[in-house]
Amino acid sequence: MNAVPNPLLREAAELSESVVRPIPGSHKIHVHGSREDIRVPMREITLSDTPTANGVEKNAPFVVYDTSGPYTDPAYRVDLAAGLPALRASWIEARGDSEALADFSSPFTRRHFNAAQLDHVRFPNVPKPRRAQAGRNVTQMHYARQGIITPEMEYIAIRENQNLARIQEAHLLRQHAGESFGAALPKIITPEFVRDEVARGRAIIPANINHPESEPMIIGRNFLVKINANIGNSALSSSIAEEVEKMVWSIRWGGDTVMDLSTGKHIHETREWIIRNSPVPIGTVPIYQALEKVGGIAEDLTWDLFRDTLVEQAEQGVDYFTIHAGVRLPFIHLTANRVTGIVSRGGSIMAKWCLAHHKESFLYERFEEICEIMKAYDVSFSLGDGLRPGSIADANDKAQFAELDTLGELTQIAWKHDVQTMIEGPGHVPMHLIKENMERQLEKCGEAPFYTLGPLTTDIAPGYDHITSAIGAAMIGWYGTAMLCYVTPKEHLGLPNKQDVRDGIVTYKVAAHAADLAKGHPGAQARDNALSKARFEFRWADQFNLGLDPEKAQEFHDETLPKEAHKSAHFCSMCGPKFCSMKITQDVRDYAAKLGTDEKSALEAGMLEKAIEFREQGGEVYRAG
Amino acid sequence: MNAVPNPLLREAAELSESVVRPIPGSHKIHVHGSREDIRVPMREITLSDTPTANGVEKNAPFVVYDTSGPYTDPAYRVDLAAGLPALRASWIEARGDSEALADFSSPFTRRHFNAAQLDHVRFPNVPKPRRAQAGRNVTQMHYARQGIITPEMEYIAIRENQNLARIQEAHLLRQHAGESFGAALPKIITPEFVRDEVARGRAIIPANINHPESEPMIIGRNFLVKINANIGNSALSSSIAEEVEKMVWSIRWGGDTVMDLSTGKHIHETREWIIRNSPVPIGTVPIYQALEKVGGIAEDLTWDLFRDTLVEQAEQGVDYFTIHAGVRLPFIHLTANRVTGIVSRGGSIMAKWCLAHHKESFLYERFEEICEIMKAYDVSFSLGDGLRPGSIADANDKAQFAELDTLGELTQIAWKHDVQTMIEGPGHVPMHLIKENMERQLEKCGEAPFYTLGPLTTDIAPGYDHITSAIGAAMIGWYGTAMLCYVTPKEHLGLPNKQDVRDGIVTYKVAAHAADLAKGHPGAQARDNALSKARFEFRWADQFNLGLDPEKAQEFHDETLPKEAHKSAHFCSMCGPKFCSMKITQDVRDYAAKLGTDEKSALEAGMLEKAIEFREQGGEVYRAG
Repeated sequence: MNAVPNPLLREAAELSESVVRPIPGSHKIHVHGSREDIRVPMREITLSDTPTANGVEKNAPFVVYDTSGPYTDPAYRVDLAAGLPALRASWIEARGDSEALADFSSPFTRRHFNAAQLDHVRFPNVPKPRRAQAGRNVTQMHYARQGIITPEMEYIAIRENQNLARIQEAHLLRQHAGESFGAALPKIITPEFVRDEVARGRAIIPANINHPESEPMIIGRNFLVKINANIGNSALSSSIAEEVEKMVWSIRWGGDTVMDLSTGKHIHETREWIIRNSPVPIGTVPIYQALEKVGGIAEDLTWDLFRDTLVEQAEQGVDYFTIHAGVRLPFIHLTANRVTGIVSRGGSIMAKWCLAHHKESFLYERFEEICEIMKAYDVSFSLGDGLRPGSIADANDKAQFAELDTLGELTQIAWKHDVQTMIEGPGHVPMHLIKENMERQLEKCGEAPFYTLGPLTTDIAPGYDHITSAIGAAMIGWYGTAMLCYVTPKEHLGLPNKQDVRDGIVTYKVAAHAADLAKGHPGAQARDNALSKARFEFRWADQFNLGLDPEKAQEFHDETLPKEAHKSAHFCSMCGPKFCSMKITQDVRDYAAKLGTDEKSALEAGMLEKAIEFREQGGEVYRAG
Repeated sequence: MNAVPNPLLREAAELSESVVRPIPGSHKIHVHGSREDIRVPMREITLSDTPTANGVEKNAPFVVYDTSGPYTDPAYRVDLAAGLPALRASWIEARGDSEALADFSSPFTRRHFNAAQLDHVRFPNVPKPRRAQAGRNVTQMHYARQGIITPEMEYIAIRENQNLARIQEAHLLRQHAGESFGAALPKIITPEFVRDEVARGRAIIPANINHPESEPMIIGRNFLVKINANIGNSALSSSIAEEVEKMVWSIRWGGDTVMDLSTGKHIHETREWIIRNSPVPIGTVPIYQALEKVGGIAEDLTWDLFRDTLVEQAEQGVDYFTIHAGVRLPFIHLTANRVTGIVSRGGSIMAKWCLAHHKESFLYERFEEICEIMKAYDVSFSLGDGLRPGSIADANDKAQFAELDTLGELTQIAWKHDVQTMIEGPGHVPMHLIKENMERQLEKCGEAPFYTLGPLTTDIAPGYDHITSAIGAAMIGWYGTAMLCYVTPKEHLGLPNKQDVRDGIVTYKVAAHAADLAKGHPGAQARDNALSKARFEFRWADQFNLGLDPEKAQEFHDETLPKEAHKSAHFCSMCGPKFCSMKITQDVRDYAAKLGTDEKSALEAGMLEKAIEFREQGGEVYRAG
């Protein structure tokens, strides 16, 4: 598509094999919607047969949600300099309420676009930006409230159902009734249900009209729990090519959205590369870049500069903005006696600005103006928790909850403008205080989706904070959080590398799925059932492939039992060949199958003698030995 | 101490430096009890000063619970062939109710002891066994019920308090009120409280009189949540020296007890090496070895052979036995329709035996005879959950709960004999079904300590089951479980190596501590507070050293910022030097400090105008900018 004029392009042209190879034992399929251009990607895992006494039992292929985009499709030729196909472009255009602009609205963007010294880092095919026509509102919430089911909504309905019909056929739907804490989880997700949830503000579809490459997804408590991965360079580390690779790597393992938190060099250019190549929604914290623009001096931030940053990023295609508009001057002193003060970067920038000027936050005061920008591009709000607790000691304090109340107030304003909104949550919270966070958020913010970082359930394990936080994440997901922001093992210590990203993502997939199971999300248990059946039947490859990280599972297995033959062995390295509980269980089944109903009831009632008597009377044939 | 006659001894003589080096930033201290020979080891972490405007603020050293035994004490000379000092020997002897035997009671032991072909693997200094005098009962529960406070109990009281008095001085005791679900958590643990809990059966002190090397510890819901590490070789893998090293490695990271689950060669000899060198209680599953003795054929097991195995292991010093006496014939068919049948090794062995003979389990029928053995050595019961669910689908089913009811019945029998008893729990359980397990266990088993494996909250993450299970472990610990059995990343896939053991242990320390915090265990939050304070003040080394794994934390930090200077830098690699939320918070404190009370109330009430007015009237001096 493109000549390769410089080192960055050369680097970016070549994603590592490890991030694009197909996931073992599976291939991409597409489920079609009502029209030709609604093709929802899923990942189909091929399963082997179960040997039985009379031959084999077929195990139907298992279909799972797929966030990995075209990268895992061997039929797709990756060209980072061209970007992904703009699958939503025709949908957006067909709505007839937006227009392509002749040039970028942001002076900053124009300067960057024309600066020759940035040629070597610039994405080579920057598209023209689109914006709502004057007076129009292009948010999915706006359409939903008009009663319109968009192609995005239909796409999402298909995606959320994960081909449950097929799973049903495979008899894997046996599932515990969950405890949903008031979530409304329909058996089948219809496009109309999606529309209704978005209209009520209970779910959002982050889908900037300038990010037509994204595969629509939804965030809301009545859908599958989602996870977000943070990437981004800092002043000290990381190149553009690395960040693009990290994005592709994140979605490979299951990241539903990616936040680009870059604070270092070339923020604008890095973001362009990421968005153009991302099939998942991209979130940012615009205040980080605004701060860069004023040389890191918080006091020098102005509304105009911030506004231009919003427009700059909205026209690149950022799908949601973290806006710390709840960090108000009257709340700042509430943090003074905390063990860890203000730990949110955005929160501390705004606190510093408020203090320096002795003024109310411009984010709070200009909130309606921000809404005007959001609805012109369909950027969703992620209302930031700038006063979240940074330690167990500071959990659920006055500062935190004062801010949450304000976020509730701002949600109502955003909704007045039909701007999609989710709410960010803590932080560091001991287990017994987690539920209060969820309940308060639901109450104060009118069930707008909650999007939480962890929470971390203890402070004492630097190096293991993916785990301290997965505990809290699983619980708050169960209670009703719609999206979990991952935490990597490097949290508090340094920037995550590729391995850390993988650890963080898979850990959060665990938390999200544990939450889906506990809520009783329809069909959630099917994958557990399929994997456990494979495990029980010693279908080793199936067990690996049905897992969240087939490569890791196989690698671990092979450390002890490297021989290929052992993958079908009816024993494992823990117990060895003679000593296998799963093998013994087969005998139990044979036994139970031969028991008569009367004898079963007698046994259950603990009446062993009666059971034996029954047997001795020759009531049933017993297998000897 | 000993000539080094063979390769095993040469191997065993040399523990890796990694398992014995002192834990960074800390050293071992001993807190003395009422008598000279009660010296309770703790680990004291040295902290650096906090720089302040007027000089420095001293941070008192922080003391933590220490399971690592003498190995982390540079003053101690490790000699594995000699074993650890028998610190409890004089206490045991002084009670005058047990006697040293001239020879081992078990014919099996005698044969092994005298077999020349085992010389090369035998521990060189096997001690003479002790046993209760005829008609005497040497259990800690028996003493407790007589009103006797043993030295073990006093030792434990000191140990559980973790030097809280000193922590109090350091103003780190600020703590959230917990939700203890009925646990009784006194502010200070007294020896009398320990006695009372043991007498009521609500806690156990696993302390075989043949394991005088052990440092007394307690397992009960009103004490710190404990964790267990499983080690052990299998037919396919692992040598004696490796297992000893794994034991030392386990306790270094915080294992409170260790179970030796060996099923391979030289089970007896491996166990001797482990016990003689273990400062923590050792648990086993005797049926594993009994099965080895009959060549792996479950049907060939007999009561006599099993009985001899119990005596053999009791005279070596095993502190608790997992006995699957709840796997009764009438329950076995209840597992037939499970997705994963019977997954406990012990459970499946007993199920197979029962089926093969069409007979009730000899463990159940001979339970009182087993109690007689237990009380002659003070071996505690860990009543095994042989019918625990091996998959989400099978959680909380009829089979599982039928067995739990039986374990409750057996607990009463054990208590009649003053035999200490804990109850093993599941398994695979989705989050919303965990609480039912705990409540039912408390009710059916009279508050005997619950000892759970995980539970794993989803089946779909082979390779990450330390995490799927840490979620469940933290929750069930919060609800009242006394000890958590760790799960390593290799669960379901292979035998854990050293790295897996470390990952498993630290993950479970996280879960146990998160549970202590949520329960509101007195003083539990002090370590979180100390670490968060260090983090906030950029005392990097203190942050690492207060963590559960200082080595890992430092290593992670150094990956991004390797320079020594950065360890005192007032920024970190995530945000870089200009951009630091923690730095900004200092400004907030300066601001709040200068606010008058009236202004504070005005601000809190959201009356910004009033606050500004107040300021403009010159009510307070403001810092500009």
